[in-house]
Amino acid sequence: MPNLLVTGKSGRMGHTIIEAAKLAGVPVTATHDAGEDLDAAFSKATCAIDFTVHSFTTAVVEAALKHGTSLVIGTTGHTDAERQVIYEAAKSIRIVYAANYSVGVNTLFWLTRLASRILTQDRFDIEVTEMHHKHKIDSPSGTARRLLEILNEETNTSYQDDIAHGRFGNIGPRKPREIGMHTLRGGDVVGDHTVLFAADGERVELTHKASSRMTFAAGAVRAACWLEDQPVGLYDMQDVLGLK
Amino acid sequence: MPNLLVTGKSGRMGHTIIEAAKLAGVPVTATHDAGEDLDAAFSKATCAIDFTVHSFTTAVVEAALKHGTSLVIGTTGHTDAERQVIYEAAKSIRIVYAANYSVGVNTLFWLTRLASRILTQDRFDIEVTEMHHKHKIDSPSGTARRLLEILNEETNTSYQDDIAHGRFGNIGPRKPREIGMHTLRGGDVVGDHTVLFAADGERVELTHKASSRMTFAAGAVRAACWLEDQPVGLYDMQDVLGLK
Amino acid sequence: MPNLLVTGKSGRMGHTIIEAAKLAGVPVTATHDAGEDLDAAFSKATCAIDFTVHSFTTAVVEAALKHGTSLVIGTTGHTDAERQVIYEAAKSIRIVYAANYSVGVNTLFWLTRLASRILTQDRFDIEVTEMHHKHKIDSPSGTARRLLEILNEETNTSYQDDIAHGRFGNIGPRKPREIGMHTLRGGDVVGDHTVLFAADGERVELTHKASSRMTFAAGAVRAACWLEDQPVGLYDMQDVLGLK
Amino acid sequence: MPNLLVTGKSGRMGHTIIEAAKLAGVPVTATHDAGEDLDAAFSKATCAIDFTVHSFTTAVVEAALKHGTSLVIGTTGHTDAERQVIYEAAKSIRIVYAANYSVGVNTLFWLTRLASRILTQDRFDIEVTEMHHKHKIDSPSGTARRLLEILNEETNTSYQDDIAHGRFGNIGPRKPREIGMHTLRGGDVVGDHTVLFAADGERVELTHKASSRMTFAAGAVRAACWLEDQPVGLYDMQDVLGLK
Repeated sequence: MPNLLVTGKSGRMGHTIIEAAKLAGVPVTATHDAGEDLDAAFSKATCAIDFTVHSFTTAVVEAALKHGTSLVIGTTGHTDAERQVIYEAAKSIRIVYAANYSVGVNTLFWLTRLASRILTQDRFDIEVTEMHHKHKIDSPSGTARRLLEILNEETNTSYQDDIAHGRFGNIGPRKPREIGMHTLRGGDVVGDHTVLFAADGERVELTHKASSRMTFAAGAVRAACWLEDQPVGLYDMQDVLGLK
Repeated sequence: MPNLLVTGKSGRMGHTIIEAAKLAGVPVTATHDAGEDLDAAFSKATCAIDFTVHSFTTAVVEAALKHGTSLVIGTTGHTDAERQVIYEAAKSIRIVYAANYSVGVNTLFWLTRLASRILTQDRFDIEVTEMHHKHKIDSPSGTARRLLEILNEETNTSYQDDIAHGRFGNIGPRKPREIGMHTLRGGDVVGDHTVLFAADGERVELTHKASSRMTFAAGAVRAACWLEDQPVGLYDMQDVLGLK
Repeated sequence: MPNLLVTGKSGRMGHTIIEAAKLAGVPVTATHDAGEDLDAAFSKATCAIDFTVHSFTTAVVEAALKHGTSLVIGTTGHTDAERQVIYEAAKSIRIVYAANYSVGVNTLFWLTRLASRILTQDRFDIEVTEMHHKHKIDSPSGTARRLLEILNEETNTSYQDDIAHGRFGNIGPRKPREIGMHTLRGGDVVGDHTVLFAADGERVELTHKASSRMTFAAGAVRAACWLEDQPVGLYDMQDVLGLK
Repeated sequence: MPNLLVTGKSGRMGHTIIEAAKLAGVPVTATHDAGEDLDAAFSKATCAIDFTVHSFTTAVVEAALKHGTSLVIGTTGHTDAERQVIYEAAKSIRIVYAANYSVGVNTLFWLTRLASRILTQDRFDIEVTEMHHKHKIDSPSGTARRLLEILNEETNTSYQDDIAHGRFGNIGPRKPREIGMHTLRGGDVVGDHTVLFAADGERVELTHKASSRMTFAAGAVRAACWLEDQPVGLYDMQDVLGLK
């Protein structure tokens, strides 16, 4: 069992991760907040979970390399340079780096890949919807973007050319290769995602609904435990769940 | 009971209306197709149902005026001039002119109006989705446009300024007055519409799903029967159903 | 503005009501927990909100009568005798007594009544579904029971004879007067309810999804504020929201 | 490409299969109706598609054995004896025998199996809903029964002991091994099925919606084409679609 370091301990997500670790019986032997000594914190743990902000990743990775600490990275929106720092470090330490840590969302990723292999052969049209709370400032969500990447890979389409972010006016008949992406915002919705495959006479819909951030925190703790027994390298949540 | 004239008798919708009349036990005493004598057809009926195309409306109205025939108009997309022809005629004959003839959709219109009166007072965010088959060339659907009109009226918003037809990129926090409109296309879906009200802690969703054009045809026949006992004037389907 | 007494202050719901009052800027001038002096608590408030347990209602009502305090009763499952105590007290003090305090659920109640008036005339079949967390021990939920009562009133059906709580085996064709009731249980779902009207060719669905108990607490505080300006009497949440 | 024999040619499903074959460009070289010479019909085809009624299966199999014709069997509800006849014949001829011939439903079967392998490990609660038209006389549907069989296999539960067909009254907390099965009936719904996995904080839902019987007919024609290149034996639609 790992000894955990949780960064951003006074933030909403840090707080939830500490609670998730407690529920899972995994010891949190160090915490960190902005302004505190990061090096000292890393010296007291075997695995760090960081869900703060992507601009902090480089510092986290450097400390992890120095102490040989494993890493679970939950931030998103990394620049190419930051991403490179992660890839390089994974040659020396164990890292899980995932867009979403919930079991359910990763199952959705996997089912979407498998479904699109069968259903597109029969010319099913694909549409994706997501809904989040009114405060979310970017669109589509990181999870939806990952769904689109998977669909692009399986259907030989591209994010640049084949995604329709909304439709309006004289749109003409639907293009066969098009994937519709619809971003709903409202209330305090934690996160809903649906992938819809529609053909003449039938539809298949795959949906995930998140109602609590605890599900992401529990997944991150699970990843930290799983990581202990792995060789040095870079992993994502599909690896942790055995979905490959 | 009216004696019906059904125009466009060999088209898909004309065919369905004739079947609906048969099921309802209402006699179809005349039919018409492109190239046939319209005047002769009108002389054999007390009410005409026209679901052909808006450019035919002026000819239909003229014949109805000449014979004192009642009219059920199911075409959409009229020009201002054509609309004027209808309004003028309704001073002399009975006309039902509606965006949608299904009982369910008109109930959705009504419930949407009532719900938005209560729920917006408490700052619920409003999003609308519609899905139709891949051949539909305009967006959003006429039914969705009518839903937006109703929401605009009840929330003091405007179709021009406050409707978001899709979202993409750095959208920032949701604007309180915004109404999201999402147009899905795929397969052979006859028509789904949902109005979603979302607040902190709860959501209310009003949905209509059409699976057959028969529902529109049956509504048109019902409108023709109802029209018989009304004074000369212009009506919509809300009048027919007593939803005012 | 009322001065609130919140009972069960250390319980989950009491805690949430105190928070809701804070958010609404309504002063909580007294609280109460099991074993504490109820009379002293009532002497410091003009309106009490009780969401503890129905067996406490008689004591709460007696104290309210003594002090002339208004009451918002959020407990359910009262015996006939307890119900009688409430009805009697409402001749002398102001009481709101409702099955559910959320704006959204009460809107659903109202829309269900209105929809069933129109849609049953056209022989729509009615089915109700609800989903709650796996710990809930009774079925169907109080909110679903209220939906069924409303549907019974509007369709001249009875709770005893016309509700089908699940179907299994050789059920034969659906009885026209039947209302299907389906109770789903799983996870930590706060509460979903759907009323479905299905006819040939179309469906109308009315759905409420609760994601937080705060919505019930906020409704109770709103009821307490509204109650201040009313004459002595018994009210429910439809009165508070003007849905009658 | 096979030369098809379609039985029950004047029935609703026979008619749809003939249309599906036409659309797919597969020749129908023989048809059959009750009272006609079955042997003569079999002599003119290489593959027979039978969607009539299970009591006709024995005669169909005997004729197929005599002529070495391949078989696509779409009837359900066979007795053990009839089933035995099919199994025995599959030692000499090629047979596809499936509960449902739509690509979408078979994809749902497959995704349900895969999802339940991952999600039950994390103690997701499972609930299944289905909705069909008001004329359907049995419950749950054959497709829902197949979904339950798959879930039983993957979760070590049994159809006899662990399926809850509706819930009512003082049910107590949800049993962890329980699978809820909910049968909705109404209107003319062709067939909706949902498998729902619910855990604390998240839900995964897999849904199929059929809107036309053509989807079943097209699947049967596809099975007939696929069967041509297979060795003698018994297959189901999962084999045809490569979902094993």
